[in-house]
Amino acid sequence: MLGSTHGSLSTDPRSARAVACGERPAPTVHGAADLDVSGRPLYAPVPDLDRFFHPETVAVIGASDAEGKPNTGITRQLMAWAERVGARLLPVNPGRETVFGLPCHGSVAQLPQPLDLAVLLVADPLPVVEQLAEAKAKFAVAFASGFAETGAAGAAAQQRLAEAVTRSSLRLLGPNTNLNAFERFRDDLEGPAIALITQSGHQGRPVFALQELGIRLSHWAPTGNESDLEAADFISYFAEQAEVGAIAAYVEGLKDGRSFMLAADRAARNKVPIVAIKVGRTETGARTAASHTGKLTGSDAVTDAAFKQFGVIRVNGLDELQDTAQLLARAKPPSADGVVVYSISGGTGAHFSDLASAAGLPLPVLSEHKQSELHQWIPEYLNVANPVDNGGHPVGDWRGRKIIDAILADPAVGVLVCPITGPFPPMSDKLAQDLVDAAERTDKLVCVVWGSPVGTEAAYRSTLLGSSKVVTFRTFGNCVNAIKAYLDHHRFVADYRSPFADAPRTLSPSVRKARPLLCRGQQLSEHAAKQLLRAYGIRVPREQLVNSAAGAVRAAGLVGYPIVMKASGARLSHKTELGLVQVGLTSASQVRDAYRELTDIARFGNFELDGILVCQMVEQGVEMVVGVSHDPLFGPTVTVGLGGVLVEVLRDTAVRVPPFGAEEAHAMLRELRGYPLLDGVRGQPPADTEALVDVVLRLERMAMELDDSLAELDINPLMVLPRGQGAVALDALAVCR
Amino acid sequence: MLGSTHGSLSTDPRSARAVACGERPAPTVHGAADLDVSGRPLYAPVPDLDRFFHPETVAVIGASDAEGKPNTGITRQLMAWAERVGARLLPVNPGRETVFGLPCHGSVAQLPQPLDLAVLLVADPLPVVEQLAEAKAKFAVAFASGFAETGAAGAAAQQRLAEAVTRSSLRLLGPNTNLNAFERFRDDLEGPAIALITQSGHQGRPVFALQELGIRLSHWAPTGNESDLEAADFISYFAEQAEVGAIAAYVEGLKDGRSFMLAADRAARNKVPIVAIKVGRTETGARTAASHTGKLTGSDAVTDAAFKQFGVIRVNGLDELQDTAQLLARAKPPSADGVVVYSISGGTGAHFSDLASAAGLPLPVLSEHKQSELHQWIPEYLNVANPVDNGGHPVGDWRGRKIIDAILADPAVGVLVCPITGPFPPMSDKLAQDLVDAAERTDKLVCVVWGSPVGTEAAYRSTLLGSSKVVTFRTFGNCVNAIKAYLDHHRFVADYRSPFADAPRTLSPSVRKARPLLCRGQQLSEHAAKQLLRAYGIRVPREQLVNSAAGAVRAAGLVGYPIVMKASGARLSHKTELGLVQVGLTSASQVRDAYRELTDIARFGNFELDGILVCQMVEQGVEMVVGVSHDPLFGPTVTVGLGGVLVEVLRDTAVRVPPFGAEEAHAMLRELRGYPLLDGVRGQPPADTEALVDVVLRLERMAMELDDSLAELDINPLMVLPRGQGAVALDALAVCR
Repeated sequence: MLGSTHGSLSTDPRSARAVACGERPAPTVHGAADLDVSGRPLYAPVPDLDRFFHPETVAVIGASDAEGKPNTGITRQLMAWAERVGARLLPVNPGRETVFGLPCHGSVAQLPQPLDLAVLLVADPLPVVEQLAEAKAKFAVAFASGFAETGAAGAAAQQRLAEAVTRSSLRLLGPNTNLNAFERFRDDLEGPAIALITQSGHQGRPVFALQELGIRLSHWAPTGNESDLEAADFISYFAEQAEVGAIAAYVEGLKDGRSFMLAADRAARNKVPIVAIKVGRTETGARTAASHTGKLTGSDAVTDAAFKQFGVIRVNGLDELQDTAQLLARAKPPSADGVVVYSISGGTGAHFSDLASAAGLPLPVLSEHKQSELHQWIPEYLNVANPVDNGGHPVGDWRGRKIIDAILADPAVGVLVCPITGPFPPMSDKLAQDLVDAAERTDKLVCVVWGSPVGTEAAYRSTLLGSSKVVTFRTFGNCVNAIKAYLDHHRFVADYRSPFADAPRTLSPSVRKARPLLCRGQQLSEHAAKQLLRAYGIRVPREQLVNSAAGAVRAAGLVGYPIVMKASGARLSHKTELGLVQVGLTSASQVRDAYRELTDIARFGNFELDGILVCQMVEQGVEMVVGVSHDPLFGPTVTVGLGGVLVEVLRDTAVRVPPFGAEEAHAMLRELRGYPLLDGVRGQPPADTEALVDVVLRLERMAMELDDSLAELDINPLMVLPRGQGAVALDALAVCR
Repeated sequence: MLGSTHGSLSTDPRSARAVACGERPAPTVHGAADLDVSGRPLYAPVPDLDRFFHPETVAVIGASDAEGKPNTGITRQLMAWAERVGARLLPVNPGRETVFGLPCHGSVAQLPQPLDLAVLLVADPLPVVEQLAEAKAKFAVAFASGFAETGAAGAAAQQRLAEAVTRSSLRLLGPNTNLNAFERFRDDLEGPAIALITQSGHQGRPVFALQELGIRLSHWAPTGNESDLEAADFISYFAEQAEVGAIAAYVEGLKDGRSFMLAADRAARNKVPIVAIKVGRTETGARTAASHTGKLTGSDAVTDAAFKQFGVIRVNGLDELQDTAQLLARAKPPSADGVVVYSISGGTGAHFSDLASAAGLPLPVLSEHKQSELHQWIPEYLNVANPVDNGGHPVGDWRGRKIIDAILADPAVGVLVCPITGPFPPMSDKLAQDLVDAAERTDKLVCVVWGSPVGTEAAYRSTLLGSSKVVTFRTFGNCVNAIKAYLDHHRFVADYRSPFADAPRTLSPSVRKARPLLCRGQQLSEHAAKQLLRAYGIRVPREQLVNSAAGAVRAAGLVGYPIVMKASGARLSHKTELGLVQVGLTSASQVRDAYRELTDIARFGNFELDGILVCQMVEQGVEMVVGVSHDPLFGPTVTVGLGGVLVEVLRDTAVRVPPFGAEEAHAMLRELRGYPLLDGVRGQPPADTEALVDVVLRLERMAMELDDSLAELDINPLMVLPRGQGAVALDALAVCR
């Protein structure tokens, strides 16, 4: 939380005490080399899910062939799937001799070993899970619902299930999942595939249906309530599979922030893009998602930041998920990032270019030479600079291919987009075929927008969807966004360096100085909070805590006029509004008066003080707010924003989840709408952004090291001085856990 | 343009002179009652286009039946169309006796009269247009391209064409247009239709193709270069046609701002929604559009404001144009604005609700009573508060209809949305049919999202698209945006009052005081600009212009300490940065020093001054910037923004096109991201927004009355004092045309 200048944070009054209490929580010591200083893992193994997706034996617990039972249909579907993937199906049902002609086992204990996978069609999976663990089964899938998504009792039942699994070598998918992992995938499609992860079966349907449009899918993991196996496990696994070109995910809530980050880090290192919907942008969405698969949604801003840090492409709609994932799965890395728009209509070119430029796609002006080349085939009066408008007619004959080849041959061009808004068979059929042919001969990305709302035209169904190279869209918007994601993804992975490689594993010397300042459940006084900053090497103004008017005058002499005087006390927030701050004092008599006034107000207001702070006055600079907070899902976070109205009215802040480095801290600043203020406006000198980044990184270290005991810390304001002069924390507020 | 505090505007140096020049442009006098004080029309007649869309006679100039000629195909198409609409086709071609068996006329002069419509298939339409004008033809359509879209020579040719038309009673569509007006419309579809206006034939194709999905279209006006008939004419006409439910427009550039506003005003008064794409959000788009149909795109922000003022719904993609127009054409006004999301999957409900809430759709929580009713048919553990999750199974039987009817019967519900992301025929086919049936029995809006990317499913093609009541979408995003547009539109038209009704028609007394202050091509001094403000009743600080140190001291005594002193001169901008402002002067000696310093700097910098301003110091308040500017398309505009960093760094401004009233001025303020600052933050009192609105309206009046002579005026800052205390213009900058 970043609030108003000079003490903004509202704290829980139950936890507030008046003075520093001296309690010292024992420092956490992590010996293990695979944990960072916050005690979170720096490494996650890739779960071996080969046997889950390609089992040799599949037991169906609760299998049935009785007419009209829901389990009968499921058993039939699993038999078909097992046959298809070459697995041996083992029905388990104490009440039957055979199921669909297969010998039926009376219990899990009677099953032959080793058992790869068991599908649980029973209402209470816990006893079966325990038996499977005993039997050293590798994987289980639990369909039953009624767990964490239903409330506290269900959550407790889910917890028991999770514990049973943790004690064993069994890995469990579910509960509250479904048959999606056992769908029939087309095996006649070429090229890299989409691997799908969903926390709702229905929501994955349209992505799965892409196969009907010729787009290859390789896996579907419906993770349900994630009592054991979670989305992150499947991300890690998919990121290691050669056939997977992109991971598409529909996520309602993450089970754990760090495991997600480690999985996304693996995908980024392997250059495998993740495209994801994450429900929870709003309160309504978060609440509804929680009642669906029982997950914490955490802060959406923090999840969004973690996505950004690891290059996860966040989309809103299922259509965008499909379109972006299909492009990213198929397209090779760009040889150049120039995008050329080619169309048979000037209007189409103008419209598409307008949307593309607005989205930030680079549309280079083609060289004079290239334009002359194109004008061999396109009338002089038409614009071929980019967008290239061919006026229609050249498409109908041999010129059509010449034009496309000439554009693709330009080294500045990485992507060719051809929006065809309306089918006009004499032109559009030939154009579609030329584009498909050209895509076969190039590694460059060729995109087509088939704008007809009908979608039954042969050029679309047969020609375009028949190509495994052309990426076809139905809307300008999705095409623009997917190309943007494609260029951004390749730029991101090219420069990517895992932050876990550089994450601190051993506590810094600052911790020893910092811990004694903390006390459980307390808000610290300004003076104590500033000592905490000092312990982490963050500059604070010259200041002294005094307890008499004479002491104040002496301190002012040492600090140097002009000075600021402020009341300091553990419960004090909103000091400015309460009249507990006086600025610009220039003489001993003013200091004495101020001392009397501040202590009077405190006495009147019954505020307990640890003294009066006499501080150096720092005026010139850009006011920032920098803070540490704690997210239930991701743990410590660091936030930065521009002070004053920008943060208070516009909530113009950027947040990041540790570990991250200086590059990312700079990216945080650039993300602020008010960023130009740091560059200097109205004749102000540019601010010392390096010093600001240094403060952000020091707070990151503090956030990680004190994660178990620090709930929140705000520097507000941090005065960032002109370049080369550093940054000074003028006020700070800290709350211990 | 709103820039930095105290004089920001960069002017054309060629037009700058050092001192006031005393030239006085003659005041414009408007006698006609149908013009506002800026000389712009307050009324536009509806062109009678009945004979254009339903002619009795159609001449085809350049008709042909010769094998392989482009005109032959067009002639054939026009013949088919004429037969269909019952018009008599008259071929004109001096070289032929007959065309397709019809007797051919040698020239326009030989045509029988009266002639309703002539289609010109000739390269140079000018002579034919002159002949048609002579022959008193009603309408002509010119296909030829090579006019304003090609550059200066083409623009001149287009101008000659326009002049020939202006001299006559003929109305001309084109040049650079096409056959789209003569397309074959389906006449078997029911309900209100979409009327389409495009400035590019290809771009209208997908909207036209909606008929294949069962959506009715009634007209298509391809306006091309708009040398005469323009989009506004068709908007006016369509807004008067009973069969038209919504107007869909693809616009690259407007011919004239005022004619567009008058047409949109007519549509708003008639409650006919206009949904429009307007190319030109970016430089690239604007440039490309200009080379396509040769139109000025003006400032996108101003066009956007005009759209907002008249309730025109701006969309980005052709898919959004189609989806929003089809909903608005079909749906009756809402009986309530509550939206209920109903789905067979908790995930789908969570996801849709998240997007809907993020877009600002009201999703009311259903009453306890309604929830109990729904729980008769839906298991207790499922969420039915809104979104309503039925868990799937109730859809398959008689309960499916009960649930839908119960939701629609709730008086808080105006819209029911059912997103079906994946087809699962046992459920989705029945659900689709139930929704179609329910829509027949209610006036409430029923929307379905058919999320399958395949789109060949029977439930979609036959059931949903077969309904003229259910509005079917393919994506969550377009559905959410269309419902938003629908609710916004009906709220807008319900409260709509035409601003033209209240627009000033006679000059105010202020004009007589203001005109003598202006001088052609000049930037005025701060003092003169403030006199201009005073002429329009806008408060400025107590101040005096002085020319000696002694005069300054006397003035300071009269104005009252503390004071501000500033250099005043016609060319002076950026006074603060130049050191030409001194604030907070509290004594005669400080005033004398300041006088000396300011005049020294001016002498050094060779700035010509008209004197030194001694001004009252006004400190407490919210700094705003308010300005007048001139748009090439719309004429005078008024801009307001929050001062300081908000306007300088974030460009947080709102603009409006006169005429507009106090309501709209308030809406401008609410549009600012920094609006909460006016309400008071950090313990500040709320600002006098009424006084701010009053200044905006006074500037609006000034902008209209001095439109011919005032290029630009900025008040920067306008200090808005606490509520009840008014607003004071602390600095002003004015540039004359």
